[in-house]
Amino acid sequence: MASVIGKSLLTFFFPLNFTADCNAILKALQPIFQEQGMTETVHNWEDHGYLATYITKNGSFANLRIHPHGLVLVDLQSFNDHTKGREEVDQLLNKVEERMKELFHGNIKRVKRLPAILRGGVIDRYWPTADGRLVEYDIDEVVYDEDSPFQNIKILHSKQFGNILILSGDVNLAESDLAYTQAIMGSGKEDYTGKEVLILGGGDGGILYEIVKLKPKMVTMYMRKTCGDVLDNLKGECYQVLIEDCIPVLKRYAKEGRMFDYVINDLTAVPISTSPEEDSTWEFLRLILDLSMKVLKQDGKYFTQGNCINLTDALTLYEEQLSRLYCPVEFSKETVCVPSYMELWVFYTIWKKQTDI
Amino acid sequence: MASVIGKSLLTFFFPLNFTADCNAILKALQPIFQEQGMTETVHNWEDHGYLATYITKNGSFANLRIHPHGLVLVDLQSFNDHTKGREEVDQLLNKVEERMKELFHGNIKRVKRLPAILRGGVIDRYWPTADGRLVEYDIDEVVYDEDSPFQNIKILHSKQFGNILILSGDVNLAESDLAYTQAIMGSGKEDYTGKEVLILGGGDGGILYEIVKLKPKMVTMYMRKTCGDVLDNLKGECYQVLIEDCIPVLKRYAKEGRMFDYVINDLTAVPISTSPEEDSTWEFLRLILDLSMKVLKQDGKYFTQGNCINLTDALTLYEEQLSRLYCPVEFSKETVCVPSYMELWVFYTIWKKQTDI
Repeated sequence: MASVIGKSLLTFFFPLNFTADCNAILKALQPIFQEQGMTETVHNWEDHGYLATYITKNGSFANLRIHPHGLVLVDLQSFNDHTKGREEVDQLLNKVEERMKELFHGNIKRVKRLPAILRGGVIDRYWPTADGRLVEYDIDEVVYDEDSPFQNIKILHSKQFGNILILSGDVNLAESDLAYTQAIMGSGKEDYTGKEVLILGGGDGGILYEIVKLKPKMVTMYMRKTCGDVLDNLKGECYQVLIEDCIPVLKRYAKEGRMFDYVINDLTAVPISTSPEEDSTWEFLRLILDLSMKVLKQDGKYFTQGNCINLTDALTLYEEQLSRLYCPVEFSKETVCVPSYMELWVFYTIWKKQTDI
Repeated sequence: MASVIGKSLLTFFFPLNFTADCNAILKALQPIFQEQGMTETVHNWEDHGYLATYITKNGSFANLRIHPHGLVLVDLQSFNDHTKGREEVDQLLNKVEERMKELFHGNIKRVKRLPAILRGGVIDRYWPTADGRLVEYDIDEVVYDEDSPFQNIKILHSKQFGNILILSGDVNLAESDLAYTQAIMGSGKEDYTGKEVLILGGGDGGILYEIVKLKPKMVTMYMRKTCGDVLDNLKGECYQVLIEDCIPVLKRYAKEGRMFDYVINDLTAVPISTSPEEDSTWEFLRLILDLSMKVLKQDGKYFTQGNCINLTDALTLYEEQLSRLYCPVEFSKETVCVPSYMELWVFYTIWKKQTDI
């Protein structure tokens, strides 16, 4: 059984312009660690305070970092396999907190203790958001974890979100995320009855599942190669799933003049392989957009996901691409809360600019 | 200006049953830290591998922890005020990662680098969820931060969620969270026209704002004391806001026989002060429920928030309380994604059990 290493962080903030008596803090806290039988090593900077390292016999250790400008940090790294270990860590941190409060009375501005960070376990609970924030998921099971020739494919089970599909570290879709599927289908404002629909990507099958309920004439879905081994090939009365690269097919459709009422692009935001067609990500995006517009009816709609609302530069760059297509287009966007993303997500609706009558 | 201390965590996982050559790893990584002019201290356990601590002249330090069962942890604590500092940390971690990959070729099962944890700044970005998970918010401004006699009141600005109200460390409501207000009003399924509505709590004013749009006969809102200094006293044609303790008022209404079509309990899940009425949290909750049922019409509805869906024990305990009221009640519940919570939230609808005709 693999060990889980917990990293517990405790921080004391003092008021601005406060000068801490680093030596007094060290002296006050030392006994707490020494009582645990921990071995001490102290480093003393001339202008930067103290670093004391405390080591136990069983491989755990603590760092006590005292900054003279009024900041004290306690980090504990220990085995947390069993409840007892966690309790011991909590007790130690409680003692440090009490001693600090005794020493400074009301002079500590803030005390912050973060939940322990678990490392080294079979289950990885940390999947940062698209805008780079640290978030912990309630993962309790690894359902699937394999490398395809193109990317790493994980399905992890979350207590609250259900199974989550994670492709090369990006949270793609969870069972809780009907909001994503609804948004990329036009948020319930479209009538799909008797319509021709083309889905690019959509490997999780969510869009197809929702759209066939709406009785379209024919849905054609192209899954990118990388999902080829995840889902079975499907064919029904009003839909077909094709597991092949969508670019040559789009080109053939454009040549044949085959037109769609709706094109839904659910390929990943950053394409995995752009060769041999083009070698820049943005060129690839524009190629898909141009080809999609060629197979879109004059009054048709193109739906796609953008990115996290905080990635304003990326979204602006995307919108700039829209003015560089072979035909003039207009667009609207909508911000949606997709439960498992832990960040707000932007979706686009794009249509051909209507020429004056 | 306060310094921000960044804690960067890098973890290497090896396959199960792998035995790491701790000494070889230490020897391979040492030069990377020494090139930076860092001073080394090494601790060697008999059965638990190595801890090497590297210290710079400017107060930063790194811990390299090598576990013999196949887990290598690198933690860097440094000043991150300026972009240059962050780049230096990234470069150092990149070098460690490259060296490790050279050393082990394909034998590293996983490498995980977490976003740096920022400590000691004016802005605190970490507000753990109700179920205890570590989540980082995109906070960019402290709008308000004061202690009332009852609790700490913070309003922090999030780039994506807008202003967030945080009471004693609990995320209460953000400007993005219309979903909360809609859920606690019955998710759009109720007709409030001409109805008598009683709101308990609701200090942020969101429920009142939404409900008066629906033309009720009269809304009476009791804010708990602690919010008395946050909002102005309000009175309009179809609503009144009273800033006083709701318990004596509920008792008076019950005595007078004043009845409501809807009672919306938006008091915090865990009451701040239960004295002098009762001294247990659950007793207090039952008291509020009992009094609310006394002022609720026979066909009226009581709406309230529960808690995070993962806190199943707390929710079960709450449901048990419902069977202990003075009158028999029935309930339904709904799970809602409230954007700024980063966890799914349970809401209850409670009504008086209809007696047989």
